[in-house]
Amino acid sequence: MSEYSGHDRSGASVGLVRRQSFTFAAPPDELTLESGQKLGSITLAYETYGRLDKEAGNAVMVFHALSGNSHAAGCYTETDEKPGWWDNMVGPGKGIDTDKYFVICSNIIGSCYGSTGPASPDPRTGKPYGLSFPLFTIADIVKAQKRLVDHLGIPKLLCLIGGSIGGMQALQWAVDYPEMVHSAIPIASTAKRTALSIGLSEAQRQAIMADPNWRNGDYYGQEPPNKGLALARIIGHITYLSEDSMQRKFGRKLQENAAFKFDFSPDFQVESYLHYQGKKFVERFDANSYLYITKASDYFDLGEQRGEGSLVKAFSQTAAKFLVISFSSDWLYPTSQSKDMVTAMKKAGLDVSFCEIQVDFGHDSFLLAHEQLTRLVSGFLNRMSQDVAGRTNVGKTEGSHAL
Amino acid sequence: MSEYSGHDRSGASVGLVRRQSFTFAAPPDELTLESGQKLGSITLAYETYGRLDKEAGNAVMVFHALSGNSHAAGCYTETDEKPGWWDNMVGPGKGIDTDKYFVICSNIIGSCYGSTGPASPDPRTGKPYGLSFPLFTIADIVKAQKRLVDHLGIPKLLCLIGGSIGGMQALQWAVDYPEMVHSAIPIASTAKRTALSIGLSEAQRQAIMADPNWRNGDYYGQEPPNKGLALARIIGHITYLSEDSMQRKFGRKLQENAAFKFDFSPDFQVESYLHYQGKKFVERFDANSYLYITKASDYFDLGEQRGEGSLVKAFSQTAAKFLVISFSSDWLYPTSQSKDMVTAMKKAGLDVSFCEIQVDFGHDSFLLAHEQLTRLVSGFLNRMSQDVAGRTNVGKTEGSHAL
Repeated sequence: MSEYSGHDRSGASVGLVRRQSFTFAAPPDELTLESGQKLGSITLAYETYGRLDKEAGNAVMVFHALSGNSHAAGCYTETDEKPGWWDNMVGPGKGIDTDKYFVICSNIIGSCYGSTGPASPDPRTGKPYGLSFPLFTIADIVKAQKRLVDHLGIPKLLCLIGGSIGGMQALQWAVDYPEMVHSAIPIASTAKRTALSIGLSEAQRQAIMADPNWRNGDYYGQEPPNKGLALARIIGHITYLSEDSMQRKFGRKLQENAAFKFDFSPDFQVESYLHYQGKKFVERFDANSYLYITKASDYFDLGEQRGEGSLVKAFSQTAAKFLVISFSSDWLYPTSQSKDMVTAMKKAGLDVSFCEIQVDFGHDSFLLAHEQLTRLVSGFLNRMSQDVAGRTNVGKTEGSHAL
Repeated sequence: MSEYSGHDRSGASVGLVRRQSFTFAAPPDELTLESGQKLGSITLAYETYGRLDKEAGNAVMVFHALSGNSHAAGCYTETDEKPGWWDNMVGPGKGIDTDKYFVICSNIIGSCYGSTGPASPDPRTGKPYGLSFPLFTIADIVKAQKRLVDHLGIPKLLCLIGGSIGGMQALQWAVDYPEMVHSAIPIASTAKRTALSIGLSEAQRQAIMADPNWRNGDYYGQEPPNKGLALARIIGHITYLSEDSMQRKFGRKLQENAAFKFDFSPDFQVESYLHYQGKKFVERFDANSYLYITKASDYFDLGEQRGEGSLVKAFSQTAAKFLVISFSSDWLYPTSQSKDMVTAMKKAGLDVSFCEIQVDFGHDSFLLAHEQLTRLVSGFLNRMSQDVAGRTNVGKTEGSHAL
């Protein structure tokens, strides 16, 4: 445990990092999923940055969104030009300061970056699971992560933080393992997906499943459903942006020739950009993982699942402190959904702060360097550290009184 | 001309109607399109309701949107259970009162409801055009309609009215044929498509073109690209609704079994609804028409096309009076885009009224019966009639003075 993965902190980077993995739930001790199905053994790929302190009280868990991975910060090699996906937030002196905190990020089950998913070999057959991989929920994702945190010897996480589906994981953790969560920061997230976003999610799945190369999920070793996955990404990508940011970036700018082509190839730069996003995506992501993870997020409804229909009741099961952050231009999980969450938290008597950041980059704003977001996260983490330190001191004082 | 198509006005319906057609631009007199390509001969399917008055001054032209047709009102047979697509607006005593106005609605070129489109036989080969059909613009659609209006013997249209792409046609008419347009009502429309809506449009085309049955447009007589077209419709349909209306109608309601199925079939009612919309659509629409018409709407940018980049300059070419209507919950062509249009019209010195209707049904609100919309349209048409009557009277008086 407490692996120190930060080397060579050049600039404000955690430096060179390495991906680790933890395997558990080998048969006959498989993890029972919410569907009743079993999954095992399970491998979780993860990375850590910074040092775990002696009290194991400075652990911050970061959750990735739909297509993310465990590589939140730093680089794998000296020549690696692309640092982890949240390198602007995680590092020495950054929003999540690795000089102070021990940061953990694991790849979720069902994904394709080292954790067990539909592309992994099914131990019963030795062949990739494909659609025989069981469907799972956000609660199942979190249940697996809990085993990793136990394995790392951390009794209580100082803070959980994530955007989008990452925020759902933070909420689920706080409710399902209240004794292990001091605080959480769900960003650009929701306590339940609504009809619009479920519809958009299903359109993305249909794009994949309509591709004949999908072959009912059994495409491994063959031509994968790249057209379908690229289209799913195009649809998804549009939902991560905003009208204003797209208009500012692309407007109606045409491709190089500056004239309509009068055919069905892309005329506008926004079209080429989306095609490029789709093309890049199929090189790095598995179509089945896309299906499983979007379905898990569609299933997410914390009030229904943990509060018999009441989000207040669900949140009453935790004492975690929350900082809820939304973005004014996010139309996938709009501010109103964060406010609903905050209202329920308050009714449940929780300590909650809320901030809507005025930014026009849409849902994906959480991935972009943003001073206010950094300041909010860093300030909240400071307060949480002081909380814990204060409580420990109070505990010690009380202890000495008792002596 | 002045065909009276309204029979048996049971209730407030125009009664039985019939589809007519007008064919023109036979070679060598083909219509030259904006691309420079030629199209001919061209057939336009159209319907009319009400009577053209002696001065031919009471003609109102209605434009359909992407997947509409010439059948705006009434029924084809006594047992026909589905009246035209705007039957709640067009009829005796309705918003567009067929007791007062002579209403024309034609199916646009490129469509598949009787007008010439990619599924029509190419006169050069006798086989369906497919992708050899030339790409066209909103201006080309309007250019063809102008020929129909000439054919009907109407020198000046009292009013042009349409929602979405229908609104674009109204705007284009007013600028391209100012001498023929007294007034126009663009509803839930825009003077140019922006990056977000172009991106969504391209995603829909990609859905069709990724379907192997599309066969580069050459699928007539074979299995059509139904999966692709259904998915395009699903994506499109989502953009016509709103977060609020979808949430109210479907929320997270599950299918009959009221439990997650943990597979990739639809769990939620909103998913089944969208599948149903997709399935219904492929029975009535041609995939190539979908490509051509969405592309025409993407190309639409009135300021760029007619004002050298200035929408004010474009509108300066008309003296038409405008009533611009937007819907508060329309996120495809949001109110801000209607306001941009209105600002430019005002700067061009035009007589323009604007109303944002507070309604949460999204972009598609213009198709729904809505009292305020009906009242606005009917009031504006009344005013326009009085305008014209007044002018005629003034003319007569002046005439007698001159005698």
